Amino acid sequence: MMHMDIQAILEAVHTGSLPVDQALEQLKTLPYDDLGFARVDHHRALRQGFPEVIFCAGKTPEQAAQIALNLAQDGQNVLATRADAAHYAVIHALLPGAVYNKTARIVTCLRETPRPLGPIAVCTGGTADIPVAEEAAVTAETFGCTVSRLYDVGVAGIHRLFDQLDVLRQANAVIAVAGMEGALAGVVGGLVDRPVIAVPTSVGYGANFGGLSALLTMLNTCSAGVGVVNIDNGFGAGYLAAQINRLAADKQEETS
Amino acid sequence: MMHMDIQAILEAVHTGSLPVDQALEQLKTLPYDDLGFARVDHHRALRQGFPEVIFCAGKTPEQAAQIALNLAQDGQNVLATRADAAHYAVIHALLPGAVYNKTARIVTCLRETPRPLGPIAVCTGGTADIPVAEEAAVTAETFGCTVSRLYDVGVAGIHRLFDQLDVLRQANAVIAVAGMEGALAGVVGGLVDRPVIAVPTSVGYGANFGGLSALLTMLNTCSAGVGVVNIDNGFGAGYLAAQINRLAADKQEETS
Amino acid sequence: MMHMDIQAILEAVHTGSLPVDQALEQLKTLPYDDLGFARVDHHRALRQGFPEVIFCAGKTPEQAAQIALNLAQDGQNVLATRADAAHYAVIHALLPGAVYNKTARIVTCLRETPRPLGPIAVCTGGTADIPVAEEAAVTAETFGCTVSRLYDVGVAGIHRLFDQLDVLRQANAVIAVAGMEGALAGVVGGLVDRPVIAVPTSVGYGANFGGLSALLTMLNTCSAGVGVVNIDNGFGAGYLAAQINRLAADKQEETS
Amino acid sequence: MMHMDIQAILEAVHTGSLPVDQALEQLKTLPYDDLGFARVDHHRALRQGFPEVIFCAGKTPEQAAQIALNLAQDGQNVLATRADAAHYAVIHALLPGAVYNKTARIVTCLRETPRPLGPIAVCTGGTADIPVAEEAAVTAETFGCTVSRLYDVGVAGIHRLFDQLDVLRQANAVIAVAGMEGALAGVVGGLVDRPVIAVPTSVGYGANFGGLSALLTMLNTCSAGVGVVNIDNGFGAGYLAAQINRLAADKQEETS
Amino acid sequence: MMHMDIQAILEAVHTGSLPVDQALEQLKTLPYDDLGFARVDHHRALRQGFPEVIFCAGKTPEQAAQIALNLAQDGQNVLATRADAAHYAVIHALLPGAVYNKTARIVTCLRETPRPLGPIAVCTGGTADIPVAEEAAVTAETFGCTVSRLYDVGVAGIHRLFDQLDVLRQANAVIAVAGMEGALAGVVGGLVDRPVIAVPTSVGYGANFGGLSALLTMLNTCSAGVGVVNIDNGFGAGYLAAQINRLAADKQEETS
Amino acid sequence: MMHMDIQAILEAVHTGSLPVDQALEQLKTLPYDDLGFARVDHHRALRQGFPEVIFCAGKTPEQAAQIALNLAQDGQNVLATRADAAHYAVIHALLPGAVYNKTARIVTCLRETPRPLGPIAVCTGGTADIPVAEEAAVTAETFGCTVSRLYDVGVAGIHRLFDQLDVLRQANAVIAVAGMEGALAGVVGGLVDRPVIAVPTSVGYGANFGGLSALLTMLNTCSAGVGVVNIDNGFGAGYLAAQINRLAADKQEETS
Amino acid sequence: MMHMDIQAILEAVHTGSLPVDQALEQLKTLPYDDLGFARVDHHRALRQGFPEVIFCAGKTPEQAAQIALNLAQDGQNVLATRADAAHYAVIHALLPGAVYNKTARIVTCLRETPRPLGPIAVCTGGTADIPVAEEAAVTAETFGCTVSRLYDVGVAGIHRLFDQLDVLRQANAVIAVAGMEGALAGVVGGLVDRPVIAVPTSVGYGANFGGLSALLTMLNTCSAGVGVVNIDNGFGAGYLAAQINRLAADKQEETS
Amino acid sequence: MMHMDIQAILEAVHTGSLPVDQALEQLKTLPYDDLGFARVDHHRALRQGFPEVIFCAGKTPEQAAQIALNLAQDGQNVLATRADAAHYAVIHALLPGAVYNKTARIVTCLRETPRPLGPIAVCTGGTADIPVAEEAAVTAETFGCTVSRLYDVGVAGIHRLFDQLDVLRQANAVIAVAGMEGALAGVVGGLVDRPVIAVPTSVGYGANFGGLSALLTMLNTCSAGVGVVNIDNGFGAGYLAAQINRLAADKQEETS
Repeated sequence: MMHMDIQAILEAVHTGSLPVDQALEQLKTLPYDDLGFARVDHHRALRQGFPEVIFCAGKTPEQAAQIALNLAQDGQNVLATRADAAHYAVIHALLPGAVYNKTARIVTCLRETPRPLGPIAVCTGGTADIPVAEEAAVTAETFGCTVSRLYDVGVAGIHRLFDQLDVLRQANAVIAVAGMEGALAGVVGGLVDRPVIAVPTSVGYGANFGGLSALLTMLNTCSAGVGVVNIDNGFGAGYLAAQINRLAADKQEETS
Repeated sequence: MMHMDIQAILEAVHTGSLPVDQALEQLKTLPYDDLGFARVDHHRALRQGFPEVIFCAGKTPEQAAQIALNLAQDGQNVLATRADAAHYAVIHALLPGAVYNKTARIVTCLRETPRPLGPIAVCTGGTADIPVAEEAAVTAETFGCTVSRLYDVGVAGIHRLFDQLDVLRQANAVIAVAGMEGALAGVVGGLVDRPVIAVPTSVGYGANFGGLSALLTMLNTCSAGVGVVNIDNGFGAGYLAAQINRLAADKQEETS
Repeated sequence: MMHMDIQAILEAVHTGSLPVDQALEQLKTLPYDDLGFARVDHHRALRQGFPEVIFCAGKTPEQAAQIALNLAQDGQNVLATRADAAHYAVIHALLPGAVYNKTARIVTCLRETPRPLGPIAVCTGGTADIPVAEEAAVTAETFGCTVSRLYDVGVAGIHRLFDQLDVLRQANAVIAVAGMEGALAGVVGGLVDRPVIAVPTSVGYGANFGGLSALLTMLNTCSAGVGVVNIDNGFGAGYLAAQINRLAADKQEETS
Repeated sequence: MMHMDIQAILEAVHTGSLPVDQALEQLKTLPYDDLGFARVDHHRALRQGFPEVIFCAGKTPEQAAQIALNLAQDGQNVLATRADAAHYAVIHALLPGAVYNKTARIVTCLRETPRPLGPIAVCTGGTADIPVAEEAAVTAETFGCTVSRLYDVGVAGIHRLFDQLDVLRQANAVIAVAGMEGALAGVVGGLVDRPVIAVPTSVGYGANFGGLSALLTMLNTCSAGVGVVNIDNGFGAGYLAAQINRLAADKQEETS
Repeated sequence: MMHMDIQAILEAVHTGSLPVDQALEQLKTLPYDDLGFARVDHHRALRQGFPEVIFCAGKTPEQAAQIALNLAQDGQNVLATRADAAHYAVIHALLPGAVYNKTARIVTCLRETPRPLGPIAVCTGGTADIPVAEEAAVTAETFGCTVSRLYDVGVAGIHRLFDQLDVLRQANAVIAVAGMEGALAGVVGGLVDRPVIAVPTSVGYGANFGGLSALLTMLNTCSAGVGVVNIDNGFGAGYLAAQINRLAADKQEETS
Repeated sequence: MMHMDIQAILEAVHTGSLPVDQALEQLKTLPYDDLGFARVDHHRALRQGFPEVIFCAGKTPEQAAQIALNLAQDGQNVLATRADAAHYAVIHALLPGAVYNKTARIVTCLRETPRPLGPIAVCTGGTADIPVAEEAAVTAETFGCTVSRLYDVGVAGIHRLFDQLDVLRQANAVIAVAGMEGALAGVVGGLVDRPVIAVPTSVGYGANFGGLSALLTMLNTCSAGVGVVNIDNGFGAGYLAAQINRLAADKQEETS
Repeated sequence: MMHMDIQAILEAVHTGSLPVDQALEQLKTLPYDDLGFARVDHHRALRQGFPEVIFCAGKTPEQAAQIALNLAQDGQNVLATRADAAHYAVIHALLPGAVYNKTARIVTCLRETPRPLGPIAVCTGGTADIPVAEEAAVTAETFGCTVSRLYDVGVAGIHRLFDQLDVLRQANAVIAVAGMEGALAGVVGGLVDRPVIAVPTSVGYGANFGGLSALLTMLNTCSAGVGVVNIDNGFGAGYLAAQINRLAADKQEETS
Repeated sequence: MMHMDIQAILEAVHTGSLPVDQALEQLKTLPYDDLGFARVDHHRALRQGFPEVIFCAGKTPEQAAQIALNLAQDGQNVLATRADAAHYAVIHALLPGAVYNKTARIVTCLRETPRPLGPIAVCTGGTADIPVAEEAAVTAETFGCTVSRLYDVGVAGIHRLFDQLDVLRQANAVIAVAGMEGALAGVVGGLVDRPVIAVPTSVGYGANFGGLSALLTMLNTCSAGVGVVNIDNGFGAGYLAAQINRLAADKQEETS
């Protein structure tokens, strides 16, 4: 964000094409829009490779929809997570092209096809982890990844996982989503040679303590090559998987 | 402990062979010795099947040795856990037959060969879990079990465990000892059809929180048939395994 | 699960009765059905002695019912825990023989009488612990155990428990279910010479912290021979009790 | 502490025997000495019935000794808790009559015989709880109570406790000291009709978490009539027992 | 509960007036009624000085009412805590004399006037702590105490408390009820020379963590003579205060 | 509260204009009203510079309204926090001039214009933190501060904050409100040379643990000059900011 | 830090007195020195009003001394906290003027007299809190504050505090340092109308949990106007007090 | 690990070149060595891309050295983490080429130059985080990465970080190592478009709780694209960075 822009401005100041006052003003006009309750960051697609994402929890449907509209009017893809039916209704009223994935709780409104990225795999320990896994999968797909879903392959019936080793090993990154004991991430980490992204879920009861059990398991895994995201944070896992894939794609492009 | 004894006493009272005063006195003279700082329970071998065990941590070497002597003089086997070299030195001075297993931190002094019980398996996730596993194994052996040791078979290299399935499946009970993520218990629980006793260990660092991570993992395991003991409680696991084996042996004897 | 099957396959390959391709394919066709959202494990009854159990919490009624149907069609007994009225309604629609135990929150649909196993006792500290105790009791009964129920015998009125010592001591295993202080497990463990399975419950308030108090009490019990399951995990306790009883029954059969 | 004194002062002001300035000054000269690092409260014996107690932990031996000297010079009994050998050495140098109870970690220097109070009982779950119990017992004795010690009567061998019911029931208050599962307090509370003071200790390991397990057990006890003090706080328990006994003694005196 | 009864039985056996069989039977017929879901302890009024109390939370209205009826039919006073309107409705239908204190969430049905005990004071830090304080006050009143209520005298306006020192100091015991920071107990403990019973409440928000903040404050108080009960446990505090008062009353009677 | 008043009383006693009895009485008549459930502190505006504030959570609408009326009748400004619509309705019925800020959950009824204090800034990390920030802002405004609002300037898009450095640096104090990771306070603390008041919010999910994450972040900040208030405690932050500003205003007045 | 500097640079670029390259270079040459293991921030005295402080814990004596030397050579005052004797020895070898306050664990080396700021008060609950209080006091003095020390005035003997109300009320800010229950901050907050800075200490034992008890108390205080710093963070409190005082001094100067 | 090997074996069985018995034996002879206390996994370099790493904590120097020797004799590179001087001494005695990095606590003994991977950056918040950062950096270098070190760039002086944006943005992955508040990871995550690996450290004090504070901050970061490893787990971060880089390198090679 810093001196590359400044360089252009400095040169314009130097050549006199930009007065000092206006240069200062430009430096202050950073590329976001202030909606009062939120500052929408249009620069993010440049700076971080993906456009800004709307986290709907804690936002009113109206707030979420205003941000979505603002992004869409700028020509960017819209990805809104943790969206309930009310968020979708208001977003859809403003952006008729918006689509709602109920399981993943995600609203998307894509203006342009995302750049195709490589394959990833998303595994879950059980059936109840699927909503979090879908949040991860849909996020990654929105950013261009191809996603293989391996659901209900937890360690209590670990032979189910071994049957899918081919799929696991063809992925550029594997997302392991599990609640309860959360051992799936470590088992996957011991089987593949690609980055593993572990997502603890709050699925469980008793001494599960809202996902703490699975979180601690994943942080303490004896398998190396595992990075952990927050409890139930499917979006974060999908985003990180896309980030890793984009690096791979960039390197592929550089050489080809 | 109650009315079976009372019945004998009642009958003696009824027949007049036991005066009321002495009957009352007998009911009060429960079968333990009061050493001042400890009450040694000689009745335990009858009531619970195994003699009383000395937990040395928090006891002075002299206190531990006095209890050991008291049990030995009663003709019972001595099993002292969490014993350090100082405990052993004083016990050995009083009971020259005492033997010290340093890794397991256990002193034993066996007066009679234990009744032979069935086979168990003791697994560990890593090398650092071995002291706790040895506490479990030596405890179970002292109570008559035959122990197979499967060490360093944790989930990060899970194929090592599969190679030992024969051994696992011949055991009457399996003790799974693991720190860090503690996933071993769940994996073992998914592979065998016998009771699994899970022992979380404090091995690890960071968000391991002194064994809390492995404890929560084991309590939340998706595999059924798993009972958990306290962190680092190898003795408790060995004792429970022996308890289960003794039930099996009793049933075997009843029918044969 | 592994090389015994492989042996048969290897021999078929050796004799030429099975081509290499088909052998590989067979090794991949592990005995479960993929329902998309769940992989039903038909092999489990062989591998673990009891059929797969459906944990309804976090599953939609439709998902639970599909798994139940799939198992029933395979001729297996169905046991669905944490089932609410909605789960039952949909399961019952597909499996008219399904029965609902509301207190235990369990749906069963038994195709064959379970193999008779030995006696167990289920105790509770108070009246509010009964639903968890019933989950344990019904689970154990479904697997063939005979269950004695000793409810409301907590330590605040400990003489109530002593009156039932006969019942306790005839059991092959005792399940102690208690919330609040959770001391029941330790007291029972001091009185019997059989395995004790401790189930902390979330019954209580204040510094009970959702069952944490009873859980810690049970893990720290001074009584040996106690294995702990997760908070409110009545199913796990019933399953483990059945597992222990099955070991005893197997040994009995071997010798007779 | 307030207007009774103010009344005397007011009257002296009214009669002119005390100028307003001096009255104000007197109100400020509260009855404590400022040693710079500590303010010794001589008024406490009047206000609270017992003299101020010196908590040595975190104080240098010199600081502890100065406070002890200051109290002794005022003619008060000295009671210093959590005193190690170094504290005792320096106190003893200044107050040759000081006596050190090493197990209880208490230094006393009594100038006057305490008023005799009634009987209490101090129980421990195990041998390792004895230091905390002795802190409670010696504290209560210093304040005039008669103490019966019932050590190593924990719930794993609960019949040991029942043998002592006579002693328990003759006490005006019972102090129950226990680590690990901490169930002793609830069992005692179910057996006596006098106030029970529960002292959790940090004795134990693993999921004991420095006494948290016993603390939660005692707070959640189903037995009513139990008040809990801090982990390892033997002094607090002894003081509260004396406080209760003093109330009883006061009432006895009032009527006699 | 034990050998005093046994003595009578023994003597009857000895004189032949009681056959051995019937003696055994009598020993088993302990004085409680088994309602199936609960065992009502009629002996408690003798053993503990106060009749059994019904803790309604976790019990159905029907269960609570059956226990109440059972106690009332035995001629005992009924005290039911944590009762909501539904519990009251069913109890009232069976026991028309039952009275409901909505703030305290207590149903009482008194058959006999309780023995008059001494005065206590109940203080709260704020207005929101009043329901817990009322549970304590009504409990103590039901057991015969005279209660002074000092509400909203927390440390943020500590001069309010000082104005009431007379009332505080005339009490035989003081119950300090406070949420949030919970400092009230320590301040009261520094001002009176009678036992203080501290009740942390779950009143507050944020880092209050359901009453944990006030609980820890009270356990760590620098004031001696304070016993703590569970979070929101007004009943326990009222019961303990009555227990202390009954000791005082007994001593008063002994001497008079 | 103490001897300044006492001095006046003492002098009146001395001159005979105030009898001793009445002097005592006056000392007892501290300047608050006892409403039964609450003691309203009219003296607070003098003692602490701001009138008493009504914390509505845990109070019935009627209780809150009675306190509000009592304060208003005394001529004081009313500030009621955590007020929901029901609280407002009853307050408004008694005090028609009352105004409700729904986002801030605050009811105000101002009798006199507050003394003008200096400028502060209130920042939030995200949109969902705005309600807490508004509680802080409205509180500070009620006490006379001028408030600049900088919302949605969290560290994930930290350039948004830098654009507002002018505003930040003109404030006498900065309130940083943030949930999730809570890093905003540390970043602000590194940029300004004025006191920073950090308010963790419970905004977030998963390992946020109800605001614990942001709370710990803020307490552990490497930036000096940061004081932290309780989770979601916007009022506390606004009050402290006003307190700081009032000090500044007092010093300004003293010199001018 | 931003556009004020940029403006000067822009103008120099505009006038041609600064080439674009050098302008860019200047923008990169931020005013700190890179020592390899640390980046010393010389600009901080300008930006934040106080020079950078060296936190010695976790730094080798050599690292601490190098930073100290670097600051001193720049003519700045040196303040090194958490310094042990070894840190002091090496700092003193490089900076012979360095002075060590052992209780406060602070090394100072002052090149210029700090600007005189206003009075503050530092209180402690007990004697063991003094080291943390001294860290706060010496820090504040180094930054120019005048400090009144009120030690050992905790709530168990709260009348000691009231005697010092004059001193408390003359302070511009009050630092309340307390361990154990930590109630001092709330009591002070109820008595003064100036900002209160609360410092929880790790002094205590048992359920104190390393200062957590006092921390939660202080965060939950019912008194408004209290900001909390980290456990044992005397430096942070002294710094914040100085920050507040500097605001007051700035305002005083502006008007005079 | 599975059917690729099995295919070869199957074909050999099919052609008769491998008898069924030997095939079974081969399937059991998995490629690891059983040292008794540890099972060394030679296959790992193939399966996971990097050889097995020795975690020395909890292993005796002799155990660590035996594993190192075993790997080296197989021609593999040796990387031993958490090695203290004693571990190094014994390893060095067996492997004279072993090198010890004391700050990183790593012993390496490289037999072959690692395949060159891309650039990464390792940042720390402060000086005390350097040992963990070095563990990450040396690990990544051992696996072939080029590492830029940016130490002491924490958020309290955030302009230090901005000066290094070029370095950050040229990295394929960034490792952010920070204790205390741990905000560095979120700030870095907001500035770069590459995967960020966050390492919380136990550096800090008070409410840092052994790294919990930084851990929670990093899990709750509002910046997407961040994966977290265990507290102080520098190795895990370095390994994951190498894993990510190896993916990029593989893709680069595929296309070139």
